[in-house]
Amino acid sequence: MSEETPRQRLNRIIFGTAPGAGRNFDIILIVMIVASVAALFMDSVASIHQQYGHWLYAAEIGFTLLFTLEYIARVYCAQDRKLYVTSFYGVVDFLAILPTYLSLIVPGAQHLLVIRIFRVLRIFRVLKLFQYMSEANVLVRSLMAARRKIAVFLATVVTLVIVFGALMYLVEGPERGFTSLPQSIYWAIVTVTTVGYGDIVPQTALGQAVAAMAMITSYAIIAIPTGIVSAELIVENQRRASRRRCVSCNRLGHDGDAYYCKHCGDILPEEWDG
Amino acid sequence: MSEETPRQRLNRIIFGTAPGAGRNFDIILIVMIVASVAALFMDSVASIHQQYGHWLYAAEIGFTLLFTLEYIARVYCAQDRKLYVTSFYGVVDFLAILPTYLSLIVPGAQHLLVIRIFRVLRIFRVLKLFQYMSEANVLVRSLMAARRKIAVFLATVVTLVIVFGALMYLVEGPERGFTSLPQSIYWAIVTVTTVGYGDIVPQTALGQAVAAMAMITSYAIIAIPTGIVSAELIVENQRRASRRRCVSCNRLGHDGDAYYCKHCGDILPEEWDG
Amino acid sequence: MSEETPRQRLNRIIFGTAPGAGRNFDIILIVMIVASVAALFMDSVASIHQQYGHWLYAAEIGFTLLFTLEYIARVYCAQDRKLYVTSFYGVVDFLAILPTYLSLIVPGAQHLLVIRIFRVLRIFRVLKLFQYMSEANVLVRSLMAARRKIAVFLATVVTLVIVFGALMYLVEGPERGFTSLPQSIYWAIVTVTTVGYGDIVPQTALGQAVAAMAMITSYAIIAIPTGIVSAELIVENQRRASRRRCVSCNRLGHDGDAYYCKHCGDILPEEWDG
Amino acid sequence: MSEETPRQRLNRIIFGTAPGAGRNFDIILIVMIVASVAALFMDSVASIHQQYGHWLYAAEIGFTLLFTLEYIARVYCAQDRKLYVTSFYGVVDFLAILPTYLSLIVPGAQHLLVIRIFRVLRIFRVLKLFQYMSEANVLVRSLMAARRKIAVFLATVVTLVIVFGALMYLVEGPERGFTSLPQSIYWAIVTVTTVGYGDIVPQTALGQAVAAMAMITSYAIIAIPTGIVSAELIVENQRRASRRRCVSCNRLGHDGDAYYCKHCGDILPEEWDG
Repeated sequence: MSEETPRQRLNRIIFGTAPGAGRNFDIILIVMIVASVAALFMDSVASIHQQYGHWLYAAEIGFTLLFTLEYIARVYCAQDRKLYVTSFYGVVDFLAILPTYLSLIVPGAQHLLVIRIFRVLRIFRVLKLFQYMSEANVLVRSLMAARRKIAVFLATVVTLVIVFGALMYLVEGPERGFTSLPQSIYWAIVTVTTVGYGDIVPQTALGQAVAAMAMITSYAIIAIPTGIVSAELIVENQRRASRRRCVSCNRLGHDGDAYYCKHCGDILPEEWDG
Repeated sequence: MSEETPRQRLNRIIFGTAPGAGRNFDIILIVMIVASVAALFMDSVASIHQQYGHWLYAAEIGFTLLFTLEYIARVYCAQDRKLYVTSFYGVVDFLAILPTYLSLIVPGAQHLLVIRIFRVLRIFRVLKLFQYMSEANVLVRSLMAARRKIAVFLATVVTLVIVFGALMYLVEGPERGFTSLPQSIYWAIVTVTTVGYGDIVPQTALGQAVAAMAMITSYAIIAIPTGIVSAELIVENQRRASRRRCVSCNRLGHDGDAYYCKHCGDILPEEWDG
Repeated sequence: MSEETPRQRLNRIIFGTAPGAGRNFDIILIVMIVASVAALFMDSVASIHQQYGHWLYAAEIGFTLLFTLEYIARVYCAQDRKLYVTSFYGVVDFLAILPTYLSLIVPGAQHLLVIRIFRVLRIFRVLKLFQYMSEANVLVRSLMAARRKIAVFLATVVTLVIVFGALMYLVEGPERGFTSLPQSIYWAIVTVTTVGYGDIVPQTALGQAVAAMAMITSYAIIAIPTGIVSAELIVENQRRASRRRCVSCNRLGHDGDAYYCKHCGDILPEEWDG
Repeated sequence: MSEETPRQRLNRIIFGTAPGAGRNFDIILIVMIVASVAALFMDSVASIHQQYGHWLYAAEIGFTLLFTLEYIARVYCAQDRKLYVTSFYGVVDFLAILPTYLSLIVPGAQHLLVIRIFRVLRIFRVLKLFQYMSEANVLVRSLMAARRKIAVFLATVVTLVIVFGALMYLVEGPERGFTSLPQSIYWAIVTVTTVGYGDIVPQTALGQAVAAMAMITSYAIIAIPTGIVSAELIVENQRRASRRRCVSCNRLGHDGDAYYCKHCGDILPEEWDG
């Protein structure tokens, strides 16, 4: 193995996960992300903010400086700097430090501080959550395969929500909480999705009858998207299984749990999991 | 290509979607529908109505006149006028302009103005949502195939709702919100569908026990319609696949993902998607 | 056809559904059941009871007398009287008239009047809803086949509800609505089934964290019973299909949608639907 | 049969379930567990505690003494004492008596008394609920097989909950109930899981629009875990069926409902149910 330049070494520590320096860096990073998000959460509670606000502010400055150093190091040692800066994680890394600096410069940017909450996304990188990307692909592919059925379903739900919302606006009216058409449609969405806050409820007998119809309809149609996804995932499972190819006779169509080729009897390659 | 009459030309622009005049017409129409529905929504908010009510009224008159012109043009250039006027979209187009005229003539017809909300259905035509009609057919066919299971399920739910409603009317009584049998059955529907507004809740220990039973029962039976729809959609998928016919040997029963006929080895026609 | 005795004729009219007298009797019966249940519903509304209570009482006496006549006629003309009286519908028919007589004799039996609500079950007979009995059997058989999985699932839910209920009783305590262990377990059931009335809610940060855990857990496990029922129904579908037997070669295992025997090529008997 | 020692006899009565002494012991034990948990429930209700608190306390002392005797007997007659004491039920048996003794010694240990609620778990042993263990295994195996899909799903839900919670904190703010980031995320969990208490609800039009988006999103994604579990259970069913092995020709791959081997025609062994 050839000699490693300092930049390559830094790259290995920061982007790598091998035992030793790389893993230690990851562990320190996770602790810092969790601590900085915990500080953000605590600072949003009024009573904690009043008592410990200046400590949390100091901690935030510290975290931002450290994350800035980390960002500079990442840009410095990235193999392709442009690619890193414009990548998903490059943007997340930048958004993790930007709001604090902005709040120092622009006076009204206090609200932007909430953007720092997206720092939690950085944990996903460390946990290598996207090794599960192929699983996500299976889900996304199933949803894509069913996209037309889902479009029909969503169009039905939208129509239902508008119909029931408009009906309730007529039946109950502004004096019983259904103050406007958008408000009534909000009520219909709260009801059809079975969330049911209870902030707006029908009070007349006729309104309750219409609401009961909306609920029973929603109860019936919630079965449809579930059935669509189940059916697609099963087809996707079978499709993947039937792509298994025997290395001896090159024929397809083997069951997902078969060990031997059903045509020539040779051992099949492992099922490609993902 | 033979010379086009003005009426044919109008038909091509209004009913067609080809790039050029046809597409431009569609885009203008979508903008107008969205704007008119937005005006309807805004006008239903009391504070906006007080301030901008007369502007929104003027806009509404304008939209109605334009939609009236469009309706007259559609009737004029339709290939079969009777068919268009009595078709689903013909009725929707007519309902989009009727309420405004009615409200000018009949004094108490203010409530009918809400009917204009069905103008959103007109967007479906422009978006050609019904090219997804075959997907809707698959869903409807699955539901039809399962209609007897669904009838048994709904009869069970209705019986449950009546039993639990009557029980709670006895247990909790009028003084705790269960003022009548219909009200108690409304409560039972709100509970069994897991909407759970919380406007009427059991307050005695016995009432809470009965309600808990109702909830656990509903939790168990919501699995049934979902299972029914999933099973039907899977069977429907298999049925469609097994209808694939080889053009060489004319035999059926090929898997949905097969490329070659399993009997004669010829290339199979594409899976008919829809 | 031999001469019909008057009793046989009565049996044909009352129990039969043939066009003519039998069908007319059914239609009159449905109208009467619906009217009597509507009277029951209306009488339970306080304002209607005060105004029209005596009219509804008179109507109830009338309905009860007519239903009594019908019951006597059914007993008289039943082919096997003992069988009818002890059958499901025999009991329902008797319960439809009993409460009114009891309320005349026993003073405190007012509450029993609610039992009359079960008159709606009598509609099921007229609608011949139990011709769908075989569909109900498929559902019941699937649930029976999955009964051990369902038992494991319910034991998990019961344990979860007790654990989360006891935890919240400790964390929130009586002063925030969790007044007792049964009350806390009631809260846990309301939460885990996603009904969510909001009559009892966590107010401390720790309580909200525990509640959030309960919700996410319930969100995950509601998928399990649905999956169980779907899988069983699909297996049941396949099982039924594979019981199709060719009348020529007597072999089994034909697909549910096959028209010809795959062994000898003869036409298969219709799929037995039910 | 050789002579039984007294310890073996005790083991047979306490751990066994044969008719006679073993079954009688089980029945007495279930009655005692139910009675002791009922006393625990009743004692947690303030009004009952005030009136009958001392009776319930006396009963609790009695139950604890009896359960202590039972625990000593179990330890005495267990075939492997260490194994029993460290087993799941050994720990549950110990936890059933520990809190009462602790509350006598340590003054502040009143809260620990709630731990006694886990006595209900002891009923599971008597009911031999874990003969269903293999069914639980099928469920657990299906969930394990789908663990990566479930991880992707949960990561999506966590991200959604954080995004919607932070958005609502910005849009609605502390003055409308969204007092802090953790509180807003609690709201998002209550909404996305469709529990919908209604203790915190959006009040501005913008907030209601964001909430409506959160609900429709949750409505769409609840279909995903259900689909995953359904698909896995179906695959698991097929996998189990395909493991059936003919005892004559030793070949695999028979359908779950086949009676004869499809290769050699011999009778297949029963489907292994569990």
